[in-house]
Amino acid sequence: MKSTGTLYLVPTPLDFGCTPQAPLDLALPGDTIRTAARLQHWICENAKSARAFLKRVDAVAPLTAPLQSLNVSELPHIVHKKGDHAGAPAGFDAAALLKAALDGHDIGLVSEAGMPAVADPGSSVVRAAQTAGITVVALAGPVSLMQALAASGLNGQSFAFVGYLPQDAAERTQRIRELEALALRGGQTQLVIETPYRNVALLRALLQTLQPNTWLAVASGLTLPNGRTHAATVRQWRQWVQQAADGTARQAPANDTPAVFCLGR
Amino acid sequence: MKSTGTLYLVPTPLDFGCTPQAPLDLALPGDTIRTAARLQHWICENAKSARAFLKRVDAVAPLTAPLQSLNVSELPHIVHKKGDHAGAPAGFDAAALLKAALDGHDIGLVSEAGMPAVADPGSSVVRAAQTAGITVVALAGPVSLMQALAASGLNGQSFAFVGYLPQDAAERTQRIRELEALALRGGQTQLVIETPYRNVALLRALLQTLQPNTWLAVASGLTLPNGRTHAATVRQWRQWVQQAADGTARQAPANDTPAVFCLGR
Repeated sequence: MKSTGTLYLVPTPLDFGCTPQAPLDLALPGDTIRTAARLQHWICENAKSARAFLKRVDAVAPLTAPLQSLNVSELPHIVHKKGDHAGAPAGFDAAALLKAALDGHDIGLVSEAGMPAVADPGSSVVRAAQTAGITVVALAGPVSLMQALAASGLNGQSFAFVGYLPQDAAERTQRIRELEALALRGGQTQLVIETPYRNVALLRALLQTLQPNTWLAVASGLTLPNGRTHAATVRQWRQWVQQAADGTARQAPANDTPAVFCLGR
Repeated sequence: MKSTGTLYLVPTPLDFGCTPQAPLDLALPGDTIRTAARLQHWICENAKSARAFLKRVDAVAPLTAPLQSLNVSELPHIVHKKGDHAGAPAGFDAAALLKAALDGHDIGLVSEAGMPAVADPGSSVVRAAQTAGITVVALAGPVSLMQALAASGLNGQSFAFVGYLPQDAAERTQRIRELEALALRGGQTQLVIETPYRNVALLRALLQTLQPNTWLAVASGLTLPNGRTHAATVRQWRQWVQQAADGTARQAPANDTPAVFCLGR
């Protein structure tokens, strides 16, 4: 019997889209870089950025095979738009992407930034691999949600990541109230992300809706030289934002920087 | 005005207690190792294991100051027994541990394994630092919860970490039912940990209580050569465990290996 390959979940740096990019070992362990360097089959969100990542890997640990010769498959577009778990899109056969592993080759799975399948596409491929009896190994690397949570000063013994908030203002206010109730009643820290260009709007909505004593942390640019995690009560945040008008205080993350928002007690 | 130091949250390898220990760069980025090498003030769960970690760092990136001369402070015992967030123990003044940072020195915070303040003590110190205006930076490294989640094949766009389950059998069954309902109704993957010597008992309780179609992943030995994440429906798990009696199938993690259990739909 031919032995099957392994599916490696390969975390990528959090500097997607940043210029200049930081050195790879700012965020990735040597073992993760070396493993990436030897894999010749890849599944990714976007082939262009996966190749750009592998070019950076090659500069640190030479690729086993030339970049041009690698087998790089993209997840279908709908999967990276909508997430691929709850309700995988009709006609998407994740198992088909894993043929190389069934033929005995190791495969790498990457997303645009951070850990694949965590707040990012990939879980449908992992599910198909587990179902097919393919070994799945998640390598160590940056996970922005956890770096934000650790630096937040909030409870890290009980927490939930709830994804994006509704865009409609009334629904968003309602959802923020629900999350605050969960956080204050049960002590479960709530983590939220937003499309970067809505960072300022989300911070404003949070400060308008949350209670003054609720603790709010905003992390952005994690693992990057300009990274920061500011955390305080909502009361203090309101002062910061007022003062920010004259440039003296902390404010919302820039509108081009991915951010993580954490709230709790 | 004297500028304050930074509080670095330094992730440590997940091989705590393992022999032989894996190379440090299996799990830690070069930047994390180099930052650890230059810090001369430390806050930790246990000074002995913090020094053992720094000895491993020294072998890769020479420490700026001799190990014996480092300033290493332990969190009080009650904090690492009970968690330090919800209800910090009376008389524990986390701010006092941060004096070096107020005096302009950078400080490192480590837990026994993985990311401090995530499923581990440390958040009270982070909270005190944020309150005092000390910059907090969480470095990249292994986070067992997220490596388990990524490899589980479960929804990573919505999840909760709920810590430990009750030890009392009836309460534990009740709690497992609650978590399954949350996971099946809302699609929120639920993550649970257990003291290693209760791994087998927890798996048994999960298989007795969960519905046959619920998806269950069990990750252990993450980042280590013998690491594995097995995932399947509860129905399939029941078969594996039955077959395990004759050594042919997948079974519970060893009773000395930390494990993460993930359930969902």
